[in-house]
Amino acid sequence: MSKYTIGLDFGTLDSRAVLVNVGTGEELATAVYSYPDGVIDEVLPNSKIKLGFDWALQNPDDYLGVLKCAIPEVLKKSNVSPKDIIGIGVDFTSCTILPIDKQGTPLCMKDKWKSNPHSWVKLWKHHSAEPYANKLKDIALKRQEKFIHRYGDKISSEWMLPKIWQILEEAPEVYEAADRFIEAGDWIILQLTGQERRSSCNAGYKAIWDKKEGYPSPKFFAALHPKLKNIVKEKLSKDIYPIGSKAGSLTPKMAQFTGLNENIPIAVGIIDAHSAVPAATVTNPGKMVLIMGTSTCHMLLSKEQKLIPGIPGVVKDGILPGYFGYEAGQAAVGDIFDWFMSNCIPVTYEREAKERGLDIYRLLEEKASKLKPGENGLIALDWWNGNRSILNNTDLSGLLIGLTLNTKPEEIYRALIESTAFGTRIIIETFVNNGLPIEELYACGGMPHKDKLLMQIYADVTDREIKIVSSRQASALGAAMFGALAAGSKAGGYNSIKDAVEYMASLEKKAYLPILENVEVYNQLFAEYRRLHDYFGLEDNQVMERLKRR
Amino acid sequence: MSKYTIGLDFGTLDSRAVLVNVGTGEELATAVYSYPDGVIDEVLPNSKIKLGFDWALQNPDDYLGVLKCAIPEVLKKSNVSPKDIIGIGVDFTSCTILPIDKQGTPLCMKDKWKSNPHSWVKLWKHHSAEPYANKLKDIALKRQEKFIHRYGDKISSEWMLPKIWQILEEAPEVYEAADRFIEAGDWIILQLTGQERRSSCNAGYKAIWDKKEGYPSPKFFAALHPKLKNIVKEKLSKDIYPIGSKAGSLTPKMAQFTGLNENIPIAVGIIDAHSAVPAATVTNPGKMVLIMGTSTCHMLLSKEQKLIPGIPGVVKDGILPGYFGYEAGQAAVGDIFDWFMSNCIPVTYEREAKERGLDIYRLLEEKASKLKPGENGLIALDWWNGNRSILNNTDLSGLLIGLTLNTKPEEIYRALIESTAFGTRIIIETFVNNGLPIEELYACGGMPHKDKLLMQIYADVTDREIKIVSSRQASALGAAMFGALAAGSKAGGYNSIKDAVEYMASLEKKAYLPILENVEVYNQLFAEYRRLHDYFGLEDNQVMERLKRR
Repeated sequence: MSKYTIGLDFGTLDSRAVLVNVGTGEELATAVYSYPDGVIDEVLPNSKIKLGFDWALQNPDDYLGVLKCAIPEVLKKSNVSPKDIIGIGVDFTSCTILPIDKQGTPLCMKDKWKSNPHSWVKLWKHHSAEPYANKLKDIALKRQEKFIHRYGDKISSEWMLPKIWQILEEAPEVYEAADRFIEAGDWIILQLTGQERRSSCNAGYKAIWDKKEGYPSPKFFAALHPKLKNIVKEKLSKDIYPIGSKAGSLTPKMAQFTGLNENIPIAVGIIDAHSAVPAATVTNPGKMVLIMGTSTCHMLLSKEQKLIPGIPGVVKDGILPGYFGYEAGQAAVGDIFDWFMSNCIPVTYEREAKERGLDIYRLLEEKASKLKPGENGLIALDWWNGNRSILNNTDLSGLLIGLTLNTKPEEIYRALIESTAFGTRIIIETFVNNGLPIEELYACGGMPHKDKLLMQIYADVTDREIKIVSSRQASALGAAMFGALAAGSKAGGYNSIKDAVEYMASLEKKAYLPILENVEVYNQLFAEYRRLHDYFGLEDNQVMERLKRR
Repeated sequence: MSKYTIGLDFGTLDSRAVLVNVGTGEELATAVYSYPDGVIDEVLPNSKIKLGFDWALQNPDDYLGVLKCAIPEVLKKSNVSPKDIIGIGVDFTSCTILPIDKQGTPLCMKDKWKSNPHSWVKLWKHHSAEPYANKLKDIALKRQEKFIHRYGDKISSEWMLPKIWQILEEAPEVYEAADRFIEAGDWIILQLTGQERRSSCNAGYKAIWDKKEGYPSPKFFAALHPKLKNIVKEKLSKDIYPIGSKAGSLTPKMAQFTGLNENIPIAVGIIDAHSAVPAATVTNPGKMVLIMGTSTCHMLLSKEQKLIPGIPGVVKDGILPGYFGYEAGQAAVGDIFDWFMSNCIPVTYEREAKERGLDIYRLLEEKASKLKPGENGLIALDWWNGNRSILNNTDLSGLLIGLTLNTKPEEIYRALIESTAFGTRIIIETFVNNGLPIEELYACGGMPHKDKLLMQIYADVTDREIKIVSSRQASALGAAMFGALAAGSKAGGYNSIKDAVEYMASLEKKAYLPILENVEVYNQLFAEYRRLHDYFGLEDNQVMERLKRR
């Protein structure tokens, strides 16, 4: 008798529920639920209350809609009986936080607070806490706080504490009224289980928490603002649970709400990119997982904790239990290609694509495939959305060099692909040079399945084999795998992530192998990239910052 | 009774004859003659003889076609009687050379030689003499030849001596058979007058000749190749005539050929860009003339001879009699904008232009005009076709910096315009810093009439008033003015170029004045441009050269 788990993958614009066969990994049904309020970045819903620059909010009611609509839909589509669902896992964007009251109700759902933008969910890409992030970093460095080194001496404005500090400064009444601040992923676990079981992944990567060291000290917080002194005791929780453990069981109320049976085990929540690691079959060191989409996340496991310059997070139990999880990233990858396709494709190319019935991406890929490495004579720096690793500087920008009167769009497109591959190589080399070897790459996301040229260039540039993850929705599959772990073997699930991987995760047959002659050319071009990277990214010429801040 | 002159302007793809009223400058009629063989860069006409890489030839018969067709056409169009035509001036592309026999017949017109590509006209953009240009420069520097400093320590592969040396090395039989090598502009004068009257403009800018120093010494030429030792005596001419003087009179044969009267005075030939200076009303120092088209030439007069680093030519009587003429240039300007319009304009913009009945240039100008200086956050280096002045390096290439996911095509377009203005400012500052003040700019060519945004940006970037030359065909008008000078006042022409300017040349009423607040912003952006210019253009990072030479 087959058993099933459900993976819930909460994204930026929508969420998906995937119902997976625990014994085979088969994804029987998928349901996508688009958030009615989407990303709230101009006006609060049903109001005329305008938001400031760089704000991005969400409505927690939209998250509940996923539970109410998408779960019943996968049950119906798959024709699986609720009694055969043995576990649920959840992955979520991060850092996405909200203030809640003692009962766990979001303040923005209460009449008293709903008109105050600070009572709503602050989405990961809410960037208006930037000044607080910078102050926090400066004070930490001045006080020589050890924790700051764990994050490459930088604090992102996306993270939890700058966002909370922003609330305290700009809406002290909301800060006071909040019983706690919580990651939306942890809040969903609270809704499903009735219990607060904060995740080591969220806390470690986004809330400056460490399994050994805990949170920063009250002295440090007091140096930010007197009222923040006891923030951990007053507004957060010290109870942090490792990835791979069980958070609790489905409450009767939620069973009714979702159409599932009571008491189904629920896994501790995980960040969306991190959830893809086991779905990529990776459970040990030396294998880097690339989650490639609008941006790219690079995930690596290690038995050791190393402080790697420019890598903004290393968290014990942050990805898989028992390992230190490392996360690096490129702030724009698919986004750069989308920008190019929207802004730089001449009408003659659009016409050719139309006449030949080709997607414009496929036409450009076809043309770019005919070029030999280096033949375009171009090099780009892939910083269209700043640099997340290793330079950690949002004020950096994109660069194209080598343009001539003969430069063709496909040559620029190929240079853009190559630049993102060079960016990944910089990250790989940083890990390797700091004692974390990387033997193979594992790629998941939409692009690795479609873009053959892109994957070959990545293999050639990094001089490493790249395996392609079978699942097209690796994060959701990973969540379902954690659901099977929460269920345990007695219920038909698994007791170890290795077992879950063996049965539930798989790779495509075709892997991409580096081609020796291309590797040699790209070694030379990478030296050029590295030199430009250092010149513009380190202290030599901060022209990009000056141009952005004009 | 009105008198008229004809200006003949020999271009790269076609030539024009313009019939001008000597008393008013009115351009009564224009005829354009397209060369049947155009630019010959693949196969010799009527043959299967293939040309090498970077070859560019022309057929001298096409030049005769201009005389035969365009001159009668302007007579007919204007209804002016041949007896009222008092003079002819000629401007020509340069350095465009050909081997001729004793009678002045091009070798390529003779059956014996027509199958040998080296017997044809080598057009200015025939670039395959590059190795000879480099060797010539190296030997000159090694021998500490004084002349090399007059050309900024560089010799262009476009110039006469590298081209002749290429013929000697690659087709010694053509070298032997040639009675002389001559500029095509001087050859046309020879055709019209029956007399060889080589121009100081051609010889000074393109054949390493100087009014005081003459040509390089036989010792130097012998160091290149033993057979070149007496090249001046054997294959050139030492008789060089200043610009503004009369070369001779129309021969009976040519009178019949063109439909003009015998004995019309013909002016000494001039290079096309140089011919525009008097048409821009400029007859004295401190005023720089910009001839703006696919590329831009910068012309300046001075009473003094200064050796200015990176300025490839200073020639006594080279532009106007009595002055040292300085020429600088940008290798691509309009060409960059054309590249952009052909390769980087998305279909949505094409559609909007079509719907609104706008030229795509006007749509982009409209959108770019709405941006404030610096708002695009971009800086470009305008080296899509290398750098002609001050760096004199064809291996440099274009650069764009500051790209983000929000960058729009009009922002890039504006950055491209700004980069060409910065390039002009570099040239201006080089002159000024070497003791040649520049008070005002004078712009001619198609763009200054059409592109208001471009001209305002040039005024703001250079912080100088820019006057717009009325004539849309300034080079041809300049040639007609030299025709009036050759005629002299007794025949109804003029005895001085100042008189010719007073009556024949004019400026538009509207000039462009720098806007103070824009000047300040552009001063800051120019500092960024200068820093990038020096980093990539001088020795710091020769990545552009390496990318090109891959």
